Amino acid sequence: MKSYEAKSAGDLIVQTPLMLKGSNGLYINIHEAALVDYAAMELNVNDKSFCLTACLVPDKNGDKGFLQTPCFSPWRTVVVSDDARNILASKLILNLNEPCGYADTSWIKPMKYIGVWWEMFIGTGKDWAYSSYNRAKPGVTDYSKLTPNGRHAANTDNVKRYIDFAAKHGFTAVLVEGWNEGWEDWTAYTKNRQFSFTSPYPDFDVDELQRYAHEKGVRVMMHHETSANAADYERQLDDAFKFMVNHGYNAVKTGYVGPIIPRCEYHASQWMNNHYIHVAKRAADFNIMVNSHEAVRPTGLCRTYPNWLAQESARGTEFESMGGNPVDHTTILPFTRLMGGPMDYTPGIFQGDLSYYENGYKKDQQARTTLARQLALYCTMYSPLQMAADLPENYERFIDAFQFIKDVAVDWDESRYLEAEPGDYITVARRAKGTNNWFVGCTADENGHVSNLKLDFLIPGKKYIATVYADAKDADWKKNPQAYVIRKGIATSKTKLKLRAASGGGYAISLIEVQDKAELRKMKSLPTNIY
Amino acid sequence: MKSYEAKSAGDLIVQTPLMLKGSNGLYINIHEAALVDYAAMELNVNDKSFCLTACLVPDKNGDKGFLQTPCFSPWRTVVVSDDARNILASKLILNLNEPCGYADTSWIKPMKYIGVWWEMFIGTGKDWAYSSYNRAKPGVTDYSKLTPNGRHAANTDNVKRYIDFAAKHGFTAVLVEGWNEGWEDWTAYTKNRQFSFTSPYPDFDVDELQRYAHEKGVRVMMHHETSANAADYERQLDDAFKFMVNHGYNAVKTGYVGPIIPRCEYHASQWMNNHYIHVAKRAADFNIMVNSHEAVRPTGLCRTYPNWLAQESARGTEFESMGGNPVDHTTILPFTRLMGGPMDYTPGIFQGDLSYYENGYKKDQQARTTLARQLALYCTMYSPLQMAADLPENYERFIDAFQFIKDVAVDWDESRYLEAEPGDYITVARRAKGTNNWFVGCTADENGHVSNLKLDFLIPGKKYIATVYADAKDADWKKNPQAYVIRKGIATSKTKLKLRAASGGGYAISLIEVQDKAELRKMKSLPTNIY
Repeated sequence: MKSYEAKSAGDLIVQTPLMLKGSNGLYINIHEAALVDYAAMELNVNDKSFCLTACLVPDKNGDKGFLQTPCFSPWRTVVVSDDARNILASKLILNLNEPCGYADTSWIKPMKYIGVWWEMFIGTGKDWAYSSYNRAKPGVTDYSKLTPNGRHAANTDNVKRYIDFAAKHGFTAVLVEGWNEGWEDWTAYTKNRQFSFTSPYPDFDVDELQRYAHEKGVRVMMHHETSANAADYERQLDDAFKFMVNHGYNAVKTGYVGPIIPRCEYHASQWMNNHYIHVAKRAADFNIMVNSHEAVRPTGLCRTYPNWLAQESARGTEFESMGGNPVDHTTILPFTRLMGGPMDYTPGIFQGDLSYYENGYKKDQQARTTLARQLALYCTMYSPLQMAADLPENYERFIDAFQFIKDVAVDWDESRYLEAEPGDYITVARRAKGTNNWFVGCTADENGHVSNLKLDFLIPGKKYIATVYADAKDADWKKNPQAYVIRKGIATSKTKLKLRAASGGGYAISLIEVQDKAELRKMKSLPTNIY
Repeated sequence: MKSYEAKSAGDLIVQTPLMLKGSNGLYINIHEAALVDYAAMELNVNDKSFCLTACLVPDKNGDKGFLQTPCFSPWRTVVVSDDARNILASKLILNLNEPCGYADTSWIKPMKYIGVWWEMFIGTGKDWAYSSYNRAKPGVTDYSKLTPNGRHAANTDNVKRYIDFAAKHGFTAVLVEGWNEGWEDWTAYTKNRQFSFTSPYPDFDVDELQRYAHEKGVRVMMHHETSANAADYERQLDDAFKFMVNHGYNAVKTGYVGPIIPRCEYHASQWMNNHYIHVAKRAADFNIMVNSHEAVRPTGLCRTYPNWLAQESARGTEFESMGGNPVDHTTILPFTRLMGGPMDYTPGIFQGDLSYYENGYKKDQQARTTLARQLALYCTMYSPLQMAADLPENYERFIDAFQFIKDVAVDWDESRYLEAEPGDYITVARRAKGTNNWFVGCTADENGHVSNLKLDFLIPGKKYIATVYADAKDADWKKNPQAYVIRKGIATSKTKLKLRAASGGGYAISLIEVQDKAELRKMKSLPTNIY
């Protein structure tokens, strides 16, 4: 979660999930499960005794919670193992939540999506706002009479370009941010009505895009940035969802950037924690899936409310354009943020060096990752909702690497945590739902990593076409992030592979079960060392 | 408004409308008009200089408002006259509001109503709650399995009794309080969900009552006590209004008893002021009329949102059972609270001495009014929504006096303020809409009042059947409140009347235009002095 809040209980506070490693080699993960009608827990650290004390996020009046007995507090979870892979494999938190609360879940579908999104972050001046008139007010201003700023990305033609790309490459949906009235002064964070969730900007033809997307077999994905005005979001919620249903949307990305309204609340205080659940449940009434950003860190509630498909709730990819994430960020997140549930990390940035763009104002900004590692994240960062976050034109420049993003599954029957050390590296293999196909990803910190993999999770006797997407020998997140190699060949359960992740690098492997021997023609065994 | 809030800006603060009288005889009324997206004004009094300083009701963070330019503050109103009657007659505040905001107002109807209400105030143990199980939670508890407390007034049979009475005596609607889940611990004031607005108690058969009321030509009036949880009310609002429409309700009494949730807000802070308007506008989307209790004092917004039919927003009749209102209360309210708009004062208490009731726990409680003055309030306390607040059985005991409540109009073409002195007396004559019938009311303070009335507002040459309901000679609010006399006779524009209001008393007159000379048979001229 982006933190806009003052520290609530002392000088040294950590959010959970907290991942620790003892000098005895024990890995300890502390979090909570089923955060319902309660304030989120934080851990107050005594920097002399190293004691941790649980404290609750209060509201601004200092009240930590309002309870009517009988009631249940969230579970406090401690996952302990001498093998870090077991921490990642734990389903404790998920399983401590109540079973699915919906009778019918047939409408809930994992998916990959692209979006009119990253182009607003790369410094080319593209904007969420339609105009520069910061006196505009949804419900009052006639936006059709405003002078367009000429930089509005969520316009019909541009969205169609994305729809075309999504249709061509098999993506389910196109997220469009900046489609609705209110972005001119959206960081005011004080307005009673910042956004309308039912009023498209004049250059966003919602009906035409509904028609066009339907024709192309693609969905447009809704975006509800609230500027953290949860109160007004609730006021508009039913109308917003009705608008979605009427215009063919079945998924929404919500956002809570800024200080919360109601003004006594924080992102993780009791009232807000109820708010997020309310939104998820209400969305379910309309068969809508939810992907919440800047909401409280998850605690496994996606078990009970599976339409709450994913959350952000930690520094995602967008921060690569705003100061950057640490090189080892993605080797830590699965041990922290993702313990509570799927993360919409929005990976897939192939052009991480933003100085590439003309007219850029972020020349010195560079994502701390290699291109190959971006592919790995589709495996290491579990989510039934995965974005391919970069611009279509960047994927076309690296269309061979892009193939992995197209191929990789978003729904799994089985996961094997092959290697893991928090802050150093994570290697995961997952079997795509209803198939014998596997996808492997490895992410490494600034020291890189060498893996000696045994593909013994494959079915003995079966043949697989393996495609390895790896950092090139001279790849390096800082100096040479786009250097990658792709090797294709036959793999079996006996295959051994030595693979090397560069500094800030990684690799990805697809392993597709051979259905027809004809596929094997001209195909050799995968080399055990790809260089 | 009942005040649950700390003083906001100093030690001596008055709410507006503030009514002043100068030593030079000038009457000065200070208030505001069109309180939209702004905090309510209060007046800070310097008790040395007697200067008044306008201050705004802040939220709990101390913020007085959040504004985006361009914007409009409410009007500050000062009404000045050397005749107090002109203050009452002023339409300044109403007219400073925007014109009606609705295209269709045909569904908005003034009305008289009775209610399952007063019986909860009189000390006989009748209750809003169905059970005594204060662990009950709407949406969680199965209320049908709770043990009834046996004192629940809003049960189907009792409501039918009221419907029968309403049908027999021509009332439009029957308010029912306590019909819905949540009253067991309703003054907890902290729950995220205190009430369900769609879940009737097990002994309130909403479908049967819809059928029964419809058969009898009566409406059941909805009640939404929120316990001041405006946030949760907004969350349920659409469902609540849909429930109303589906069950034949077209009017709702809302309530905001307790400290506000969102917890940073006060009853009169900016966010809440927007909330009330939101509710009124949203109700209009469902063709629903609103009567808000414990909301911010009105500022003429019923011009713009005429379905916001009335408000309480000052000590109404219910306080006669909770410590009592001052004897001169009703001679002041039209100069203060009612300057901003109609008040649902809920008059008509015939049995004001609560020691009358058996098993009473309020033996010493007595309404500070005579019975005759209760009739007058239907004229002096302007509202298009008027309740006959007492129990049906009390009206049956005084059926001749009750006739005035049955006859009196709630919608007017013309008003004459015949006599007025704030804190002493008010006498008003009003002409019923679309007729030549007039209704006159006089309310007096502890000193009583003698009126020498000229009925010169009647059409010259026409004859009227006048019925005078006055305090008997020996009436007195404290010692003999139920002593009244009724005199009937012919009146014309030349009629002069000497009438006397007892201490805490008053009188009411109906003047019905004679349509058929047959009505005059055996009818004499009204005596000029009724004793």
